[in-house]
Amino acid sequence: MTAASQKSYSLDEIAALLGGEVLGNGATRVSQVATMAAAQAGDISFLSNPKYKKLLETTQAGAMIFDRDSADAASLPRIVCDNPYVYFAKLSALLNPPPQAAPGVDASARIAASARIAASVSIGPFVSVGRDACVGEGSVIGEGCSIGDNVSIGRDCRFYPGVVIYRDCILGDRVILHSGVVIGADGFGLARDHDRWLKIPQIGRAVIGNDVEIGANTTVDRGALDDTVIEEGVKLDNQIQIAHNVRIGAHTAMAGCVGIAGSAVIGKHCTVGGGAIILGHLEIVDHVNISAGTLITKSIREPGIYTSALPFSAHAQWLKNAAHLRHLDAMADKIAQLENRIKELERK
Amino acid sequence: MTAASQKSYSLDEIAALLGGEVLGNGATRVSQVATMAAAQAGDISFLSNPKYKKLLETTQAGAMIFDRDSADAASLPRIVCDNPYVYFAKLSALLNPPPQAAPGVDASARIAASARIAASVSIGPFVSVGRDACVGEGSVIGEGCSIGDNVSIGRDCRFYPGVVIYRDCILGDRVILHSGVVIGADGFGLARDHDRWLKIPQIGRAVIGNDVEIGANTTVDRGALDDTVIEEGVKLDNQIQIAHNVRIGAHTAMAGCVGIAGSAVIGKHCTVGGGAIILGHLEIVDHVNISAGTLITKSIREPGIYTSALPFSAHAQWLKNAAHLRHLDAMADKIAQLENRIKELERK
Amino acid sequence: MTAASQKSYSLDEIAALLGGEVLGNGATRVSQVATMAAAQAGDISFLSNPKYKKLLETTQAGAMIFDRDSADAASLPRIVCDNPYVYFAKLSALLNPPPQAAPGVDASARIAASARIAASVSIGPFVSVGRDACVGEGSVIGEGCSIGDNVSIGRDCRFYPGVVIYRDCILGDRVILHSGVVIGADGFGLARDHDRWLKIPQIGRAVIGNDVEIGANTTVDRGALDDTVIEEGVKLDNQIQIAHNVRIGAHTAMAGCVGIAGSAVIGKHCTVGGGAIILGHLEIVDHVNISAGTLITKSIREPGIYTSALPFSAHAQWLKNAAHLRHLDAMADKIAQLENRIKELERK
Repeated sequence: MTAASQKSYSLDEIAALLGGEVLGNGATRVSQVATMAAAQAGDISFLSNPKYKKLLETTQAGAMIFDRDSADAASLPRIVCDNPYVYFAKLSALLNPPPQAAPGVDASARIAASARIAASVSIGPFVSVGRDACVGEGSVIGEGCSIGDNVSIGRDCRFYPGVVIYRDCILGDRVILHSGVVIGADGFGLARDHDRWLKIPQIGRAVIGNDVEIGANTTVDRGALDDTVIEEGVKLDNQIQIAHNVRIGAHTAMAGCVGIAGSAVIGKHCTVGGGAIILGHLEIVDHVNISAGTLITKSIREPGIYTSALPFSAHAQWLKNAAHLRHLDAMADKIAQLENRIKELERK
Repeated sequence: MTAASQKSYSLDEIAALLGGEVLGNGATRVSQVATMAAAQAGDISFLSNPKYKKLLETTQAGAMIFDRDSADAASLPRIVCDNPYVYFAKLSALLNPPPQAAPGVDASARIAASARIAASVSIGPFVSVGRDACVGEGSVIGEGCSIGDNVSIGRDCRFYPGVVIYRDCILGDRVILHSGVVIGADGFGLARDHDRWLKIPQIGRAVIGNDVEIGANTTVDRGALDDTVIEEGVKLDNQIQIAHNVRIGAHTAMAGCVGIAGSAVIGKHCTVGGGAIILGHLEIVDHVNISAGTLITKSIREPGIYTSALPFSAHAQWLKNAAHLRHLDAMADKIAQLENRIKELERK
Repeated sequence: MTAASQKSYSLDEIAALLGGEVLGNGATRVSQVATMAAAQAGDISFLSNPKYKKLLETTQAGAMIFDRDSADAASLPRIVCDNPYVYFAKLSALLNPPPQAAPGVDASARIAASARIAASVSIGPFVSVGRDACVGEGSVIGEGCSIGDNVSIGRDCRFYPGVVIYRDCILGDRVILHSGVVIGADGFGLARDHDRWLKIPQIGRAVIGNDVEIGANTTVDRGALDDTVIEEGVKLDNQIQIAHNVRIGAHTAMAGCVGIAGSAVIGKHCTVGGGAIILGHLEIVDHVNISAGTLITKSIREPGIYTSALPFSAHAQWLKNAAHLRHLDAMADKIAQLENRIKELERK
């Protein structure tokens, strides 16, 4: 993946910027990160799991990142640090800065006269920005994005093509929104009036904190009366649905295809596995980890890991077991009867 | 959330428009609805659940909506009615009319010469409207929407930015489509030709009834041969997938992340909880409620509530139980053996 | 659905093009395919399942497609062939060619000077094509699509409105992407740095093979270091999430709402049912069929059908059974105790 024009750094330069100790030839230059299997001479790789040590024998990497215990696992030029995976993340960010977007507003964009666009903002073709909206310094709005009236966007945000923000929503600094993200659409608010559904106007906003990243085609609805809130540092993967009046605590991360129903309050530093569903009007404390495919039906008051997945099996075996799943109550009754009969026999 | 310019109404004026009985000072003016906890002087709140009565002691609301049983629960200026939640929905709609969009077609929009756009329609920037398409009076087509050839859109519809309607689809009056909605994409129609998949042209349409609302990033496929049909008054939340040739009966509501497989026929006045999956080629009668996270694998002939969710538990406890889930058949065999041995003992 | 202008063919002409044996009047002309129930005089229908034979008595179809066993099931003009469903698919493709798009680049499109657009390509309004991107002969890029820098698109592709391809991604020939598809967004790559998440730049690409079709609002992330790969002939339905570094083997098909977590490797000729979730870093061999709603938590080494769905039931019955699901381990213990007591009784 190394672009021909990729800038290179010596290990000494890298350690000066990011810390760590250089062992071997510190003048060795690298321009890209890579897996041990794919790395070439100009690449630096990392060992974060001892089970991959064997790959050190064959890797073509020009340099490595090791933790202190593995400092001498190979004689390649190397950087030794506390957490090779975190070091790799920082180094990759150094080697792969996001593509620069030239400041300025594309001639095709429709910017309301009352919108305030900072001078260093880049706005692509076919973008709309509504009345009284504001976009902070350094932010990049990709082609075809639609920013509603009175939306507030912080500094150094990056919206990929095709993002939609409904009116009045608030986004912090350094927010990354991937293509297809929709922020602030109406929540699913309905009142049943005899046999019809009456729409309840959704007059809250969606409020997104600093350093939030939201994956492609994820949706975050606006609040019904109060706001929907995504606190700082939250990371949402693709295809997630966040319903109205949800609050997601700071630094919580959710994998793809998760659904969070209305008014759920999720704590800080939680993780939610792919495809999990969290029902509405419940509370989950900080530091809860929910396994993939799990359905959370009531509040969680204690930190920990929670799971509800049915183990898969070969279909023929599943058929045998599944039949019993519908008759567990009868099975429990049968066991109780047998116990009584045994008691009776024991009594004799 | 109250905009400074929000129009206010006295309780007497509201009751004249929406019914209900005013108690206390009918000249009290309100301009917005709010929860009891957030309400300020110019706001009106509502009590729909007796368990929130305690909040009446502290609410700053200027007025309340009560049912007849709670008519004297507080001495605030108030409106008494049969169903406070429905009344609140209607009042909120009165106080929060959707933002007006100026009639007219944006200069950047691409409207086919043969398209028929009613005079009061508003069409935003970067919209495409195909040949022979028509858009009825009062409809608002947000920026970047794409309306295919021969699509028919009724009166007073509202499409938020970035909606796509494929050719030939039919939409009724007052249809609301949120951003990212795709109507009429090809259904997943494949014939297996030896070891390849052959695409089957999808020549049916998607037909959407009056008063349907569809949430952000939801998809409704066109039919394979016949049409996919969403009947009047259906409400679909975000991130839902409706496959080809599905029919959804009038006034049915589905929460986020639901998937309906091909040719399923869902009755009227049903509800489907978030993340539920309904398999194809089955029928569900009217007035069925399907719980969140439930997988429906065969037809449902009787109204009622249906569920298949595995209860979640702490992971360590789940691990213990899950092991047995794969061995229920063996457990049932064991119970039968024990019963036989008990019988044998009893016989002696 | 038959357009007035639909071209018609005689059965003899069809058999000359697609094979099969004509019985009855080969001069019979048909212009559209239809179900037996909906077919009219100019339509041809097919019988692929003997259980629908009864419809032959009432169908108004002008002609039928039969397999050899059913060759004389009706005296209508008919084509007899090995596989009526495959024949129908081919015939429908003949009768329903995709709408032609005039070659050329819409005046509103933003095409980078260094992009290479083949002469027969059609590019719609409001499309962006980035630097050094290329689009092969015969491809059609619908309105509002965004093609990133250095993207490579093969011949005869068709992108419906609103598709986004991030930079550097590679797509083969005859790729069909439906509206809302996002290819190459950043994978969900995070390193935990104390109590924060650090973003890991996603420097791999998404590489899509020939003859792949991807449904509306489906997302395929780019790789973290290496590429995400969708091999030739893969068919993905709507609302699917494919995470970074996944590989999907040739001719595998996945139904709607599926989620595949990072670095999963799925074999060739697999099928995945709607709403299934496949966890990351596991391998599934060729010819595996995963049932709808199933959660795959570990590698699958043998071809076959795999399932984990909990059977649904009426809610009241489910409540009774679900309580036991949380106590299976205690139930197993109880059975073991009973067995010991029986042994003791037997010993006496």
